[in-house]
Amino acid sequence: MKKIAVILSGCGVFDGAEIHEAVLTLLNIELQGASYQCFAPNIDQHHVINHITGEEMPEKRNVLVESARIARGEIKDLKELNISEFDALALPGGFGAAKNLCDFALKGAECEINEDVANACRAFADAQKPAAYICIAPAIIPQVYAAGTLATIGNDLDTANVVNALGAAHQNCAVDDIIIDESAKVISTPAYMLATNIREAASGIEKAIAQLVKMS
Amino acid sequence: MKKIAVILSGCGVFDGAEIHEAVLTLLNIELQGASYQCFAPNIDQHHVINHITGEEMPEKRNVLVESARIARGEIKDLKELNISEFDALALPGGFGAAKNLCDFALKGAECEINEDVANACRAFADAQKPAAYICIAPAIIPQVYAAGTLATIGNDLDTANVVNALGAAHQNCAVDDIIIDESAKVISTPAYMLATNIREAASGIEKAIAQLVKMS
Repeated sequence: MKKIAVILSGCGVFDGAEIHEAVLTLLNIELQGASYQCFAPNIDQHHVINHITGEEMPEKRNVLVESARIARGEIKDLKELNISEFDALALPGGFGAAKNLCDFALKGAECEINEDVANACRAFADAQKPAAYICIAPAIIPQVYAAGTLATIGNDLDTANVVNALGAAHQNCAVDDIIIDESAKVISTPAYMLATNIREAASGIEKAIAQLVKMS
Repeated sequence: MKKIAVILSGCGVFDGAEIHEAVLTLLNIELQGASYQCFAPNIDQHHVINHITGEEMPEKRNVLVESARIARGEIKDLKELNISEFDALALPGGFGAAKNLCDFALKGAECEINEDVANACRAFADAQKPAAYICIAPAIIPQVYAAGTLATIGNDLDTANVVNALGAAHQNCAVDDIIIDESAKVISTPAYMLATNIREAASGIEKAIAQLVKMS
């Protein structure tokens, strides 16, 4: 059975992993006959957002501890990821991917990537093992892969320009479709960068994970 | 388009709504051609659990605010639920259903149900509008419906005995199946009371929501 490592970035679209995308990723991995292990970096979240008001809350939360909610407790510190145990990698989106895994949402083209995330993602790239980046997580692609690697964040021009400035070759993509860089073995799909409901998000994620398992 | 009210109980299996069950409920509502609105009671969680260690954390979190993470911010205080706007009701499980919506997990057959939850659930029952209770949420069924109403929490004898002591007529049920009380229009399914993975949980929830939309 193929085994997929999933990197989460917290628990909630505005300060962590987008929950629908994360759950749909796990569901589709199993529906494709593969299994998963969740990981997250053991760091504080950039901040905590009240998801009703959009305002920052005066709290500290840990990315690994909050990600464990999505993983039902079955999660490991990203430092423990041993790439030899896995066939492929998947990163759901949510602002956590752009605030906790890297600081793309805060610094745009000047962003930096968390060291544990960089080590894990680059290990999959170097080993030519496929990876799927979902929603805003494809902003990480140019920080991991060679210049010109294909990636999509949907069709938002400003965001696409920043992804290009980082070195990717952005391609517009419909919500129910995926962009594949065959030579880098990288798949991306817009999900909630474009989706207006969970059914739309599911359509692209289903395709991305099917392709990920097929390529692995 | 049929509209389903979904009552959440926080965000995370050990102290709130079970996230996979909640997301699968929302997904299947849309796949059945219906739409949803999420609600939650505006109360403190019973407690906050670190989902890695299982230990209580020295924090307070609000059920409505945390549930908003699953609903991507689109959630209302359960007090605002106007039953005339909805065709059916769904309650995903997780310990939140048995710690926040009622105190079944703490007091068993002596449990009491939150007033807003009771008002909402009883309004659907009185109006003969169908409802689906998932995982441990069926422990609420005997607190809402007449004695002898059919319900399942899977096949755990101790838990089933308490559900029966509260007045329900418990039926054992496989993870991929549902129990229907036709006259009360109540559906229940075990989900993570029995599921060992997300694919199994999805199988019963898909059937439960399909039946819910069909009955509404």
